[in-house]
Amino acid sequence: MKKIALAIHGGAGTILRATMTSELEREYRSGLENALNVGWDVLSRGGSSLDAVEATVCALEEFPLFNAGRGSVFTHEGKNEMDASIMDGKTNRAGAIAFVRNVKNPIRLARLVMEKTPHILLAAEGANEFAKQMAVEFAPDEYFFTEHRWKQLQDAIADGRVRLDHADDRRSEIANRKSLGTVGAVACDQEGNLAAATSTGGMTNKKFGRVGDTALIGAGTFAENETCAVSCTGHGEYFIIGVTAYDVAARIKYKGLDLERAANETLERLTETGGDGGFIAVDAEGNIVMPFNCDGMYRGYRTEDAQVVKIYRD
Amino acid sequence: MKKIALAIHGGAGTILRATMTSELEREYRSGLENALNVGWDVLSRGGSSLDAVEATVCALEEFPLFNAGRGSVFTHEGKNEMDASIMDGKTNRAGAIAFVRNVKNPIRLARLVMEKTPHILLAAEGANEFAKQMAVEFAPDEYFFTEHRWKQLQDAIADGRVRLDHADDRRSEIANRKSLGTVGAVACDQEGNLAAATSTGGMTNKKFGRVGDTALIGAGTFAENETCAVSCTGHGEYFIIGVTAYDVAARIKYKGLDLERAANETLERLTETGGDGGFIAVDAEGNIVMPFNCDGMYRGYRTEDAQVVKIYRD
Repeated sequence: MKKIALAIHGGAGTILRATMTSELEREYRSGLENALNVGWDVLSRGGSSLDAVEATVCALEEFPLFNAGRGSVFTHEGKNEMDASIMDGKTNRAGAIAFVRNVKNPIRLARLVMEKTPHILLAAEGANEFAKQMAVEFAPDEYFFTEHRWKQLQDAIADGRVRLDHADDRRSEIANRKSLGTVGAVACDQEGNLAAATSTGGMTNKKFGRVGDTALIGAGTFAENETCAVSCTGHGEYFIIGVTAYDVAARIKYKGLDLERAANETLERLTETGGDGGFIAVDAEGNIVMPFNCDGMYRGYRTEDAQVVKIYRD
Repeated sequence: MKKIALAIHGGAGTILRATMTSELEREYRSGLENALNVGWDVLSRGGSSLDAVEATVCALEEFPLFNAGRGSVFTHEGKNEMDASIMDGKTNRAGAIAFVRNVKNPIRLARLVMEKTPHILLAAEGANEFAKQMAVEFAPDEYFFTEHRWKQLQDAIADGRVRLDHADDRRSEIANRKSLGTVGAVACDQEGNLAAATSTGGMTNKKFGRVGDTALIGAGTFAENETCAVSCTGHGEYFIIGVTAYDVAARIKYKGLDLERAANETLERLTETGGDGGFIAVDAEGNIVMPFNCDGMYRGYRTEDAQVVKIYRD
């Protein structure tokens, strides 16, 4: 029997003690702890890593402070459009969705794409039609609405952020807005099977149907028993060109590195290319890493020996 | 000055001499030769690999027998929805679009995403809105319409192919329909800069907003000067879970393989996982590979020494 292990994140970016109240910090910590408990329950009862990451991400989606499910940011049109992806390291099957609306748990829909279709990624109207056909749980706009995300949209519109005719000089700003809250989980179960899941509400004031790394297998999410399971968070565009989630796996497979060294090298590469963010990863020995290159990352893990929840760098 | 090199494909799949007329074969060959000439013109005048792959893919998109641009397959609703992606190996920047309609050259729009936005992938309504804002060349439905693709849709609807409630047993059939015609180009220019571009009309009778590998950097398209430029064609879902285009690059970077060995290993892995198709790739020394694991692949290359156009395995 393998060592079970679970790691989660709730987004990486400019997260500073100076701008955090102790009440808000407590809330974040309780959201992370609750999600860890949900996933650990599955794993410790002998459940699969796939079920564990799905249940964990559902809990994170239902927690309103993270930018996924309830609490998602608003697009330019004032809508919540959500992306999610999941991958099973045992079978190397995967499912993902982009731009779904009013789906209570986008990660469940991603899993249905994996299990009920011959496809990997469904997007936009088609994905919403698929959600209806699968009769997943829907929730009204009010469920997803949070005051702080609405305020973010108004601020972003006022500042003209995420204008597509304005490229590089806006990149870091965009990163800061977007990065706060994508959620993810990776797990190793008793049989040594790995799985990864990621879910996001996307980018505040998003226009033009931008798809980030969260919907993309290889970029934001990857799992393969022989190497590792990875879930990323940060400025998505850099994770796409760096094929970041798969890059960790490739360094293990092809360079023979262990998880920690592979993860450090991948993060170094991300930093070199100018990308902000981080990721969580687990291997089939139950080793966990949670590297990031920005101020903070909402994150936590649980193993037989420890439960840890952290926000800042130190 | 580096050796310039250009390779192209027009899709891989069940392409048998027995089902091909000599007239049709001549047409295909002339379409491939014309595209090679267009790209070679750019490279031989000292142009960049990025300009060369864009111009080459435009020529392939305008050729009605391939499933990209003019000649794209029809979705279930009788529409042409197109995906494309492009990557610059020198800068590691990339652009991609999914589900665009009535855009004459989707690959040009992908390049505009790369150059005019801070994003990588734009999809659906937003991508179409972006196309309007960029004032790219549009064409009416009649331009994209081809009799043989319309007939394919009617046949597919009659057979109930690409039904999402029917998974594995349909996979190979879907592969056969989809794989005939995605186009792509890879090039190495005089400065040793690499680029890759891929474009497709997607899958006949496609529903539910399925996104294939062509729109996805790392899966269907990848370019990096230090390793190689790759453009894939085949059953897209397998290229997504295998992160196929980037996998070739990773085997070069992390295993120290040359292009040919890396490409062979990646193709082997694709075959092991059950994926049909192939890819073209070039490195900064001007080496070219064009491996595939199905009956045929419309393909060709040009170097200082040779121009080759092939369809079948032998």
